[in-house]
Amino acid sequence: MSITASEISSHLVLGGARSGKSSYAERLVTRFPAPYIYLATAEVSDEEMRERVLKHQEHRGAEWQTIETPLDLTGTLRDLRLLKRAVLLDCLTLWLSNLLLHGNSMNHETHIDELCSCIQTLNYPLVIVSNEVGTGIVPENALARRFRDLAGFANQRIAALCSSVTLVVAGIPLKLK
Amino acid sequence: MSITASEISSHLVLGGARSGKSSYAERLVTRFPAPYIYLATAEVSDEEMRERVLKHQEHRGAEWQTIETPLDLTGTLRDLRLLKRAVLLDCLTLWLSNLLLHGNSMNHETHIDELCSCIQTLNYPLVIVSNEVGTGIVPENALARRFRDLAGFANQRIAALCSSVTLVVAGIPLKLK
Amino acid sequence: MSITASEISSHLVLGGARSGKSSYAERLVTRFPAPYIYLATAEVSDEEMRERVLKHQEHRGAEWQTIETPLDLTGTLRDLRLLKRAVLLDCLTLWLSNLLLHGNSMNHETHIDELCSCIQTLNYPLVIVSNEVGTGIVPENALARRFRDLAGFANQRIAALCSSVTLVVAGIPLKLK
Repeated sequence: MSITASEISSHLVLGGARSGKSSYAERLVTRFPAPYIYLATAEVSDEEMRERVLKHQEHRGAEWQTIETPLDLTGTLRDLRLLKRAVLLDCLTLWLSNLLLHGNSMNHETHIDELCSCIQTLNYPLVIVSNEVGTGIVPENALARRFRDLAGFANQRIAALCSSVTLVVAGIPLKLK
Repeated sequence: MSITASEISSHLVLGGARSGKSSYAERLVTRFPAPYIYLATAEVSDEEMRERVLKHQEHRGAEWQTIETPLDLTGTLRDLRLLKRAVLLDCLTLWLSNLLLHGNSMNHETHIDELCSCIQTLNYPLVIVSNEVGTGIVPENALARRFRDLAGFANQRIAALCSSVTLVVAGIPLKLK
Repeated sequence: MSITASEISSHLVLGGARSGKSSYAERLVTRFPAPYIYLATAEVSDEEMRERVLKHQEHRGAEWQTIETPLDLTGTLRDLRLLKRAVLLDCLTLWLSNLLLHGNSMNHETHIDELCSCIQTLNYPLVIVSNEVGTGIVPENALARRFRDLAGFANQRIAALCSSVTLVVAGIPLKLK
């Protein structure tokens, strides 16, 4: 089965660390016809991580194809219009963190603008996982503060354009939009 | 137009860093007849901050009058009964932080008691912005822990007396009361 | 009066620091017939804490019996089947923290599995207080990261099996389940 026009949508799934946001997002994607694309923004930097990633891939099973896209997320999303499959992006905040650490000189807000424009042109269902990181104490570390501001800004921008937004707390989805 | 009796209300807007809480609170205030009062609790300590504050003022536009009140918030709220305009207080947690750093010897809880008593006597609509800071890991810094406790305590007290309470997540308001 | 079969239930109350979660949980328990059991997971390590604990006990009043159970929480819950009274467990995250610091060599996830199995066999109403700790910035401290992961994992597991789950924000309960 292929994706029909009525299935094209975007859904932002927010949550804290170990809130169950990724599992919930996975369940959302598997409501669409298989196969699925898993868009990983994690940078696989060592053997331990490579093993964890492989374990996750096995858990998701053969219906999922993993694509790693630590930096050129917008380009990858655009290219995926050719495949027209349901896509799980896991996760937005890790991509922002990669931008902060290794990104080119382009302004981070510009990267987010480009991502937002791209999302509005997609021809497939997209579920975006993102961390809520702004409800603790102001971090003492300056880079952590920049990351926190950027994540909050990006979550607002993406939430505004997604058709659905869900906050996951202790594994339970709370519909925000 | 002036504020009518039925418009007198208090609304607490909670949210994390860059959650969109201030923008949402601003929209709530502009539902009332102009002009509006912007009550800033930020202490303008350097030139960079002065510029940021001016930029925010320009963004809000000519219908807003800004009053800075880093410490005597309760006195300022009381005095504003003479003007009888819709007031945006941005934000409660910054005022608490100012109290902790520069406040007089009066107990912080007493300051919060006085604020709560004052809010119940106002003759104008008040929208209060406050940060949710308690859902991260316990901070290692002792002052940060005191601030976190004080902010949580104040948010509970103010929420109990406000007619409306909203949590803003990624720019989306979630009605709590 | 004794607990009837229809009153046997489990309710998870989540919230940040000073969110009012314990007060709300206490109110939930006192809807059941007295007397009540207060299950304290805090380890009383010094005189200051001893005084705070005594103050809390006086505040709750004579209808409450306090039992301290810093480590063998599952055993204590099992034993309480003999009493068949409404129980307030305050709190789950402190127990996890005790496990991390002083627990035996058994895997922490196994402890959580055993707790989950036990909860499903209880013959009394149980209200569980737990901290939401995962929506701040990733902690720099490795032990804090482990604790955060464990707390998120435990909250998900317990939330899945409880009949009700409530998030408390600024003293206001938000029903999740």
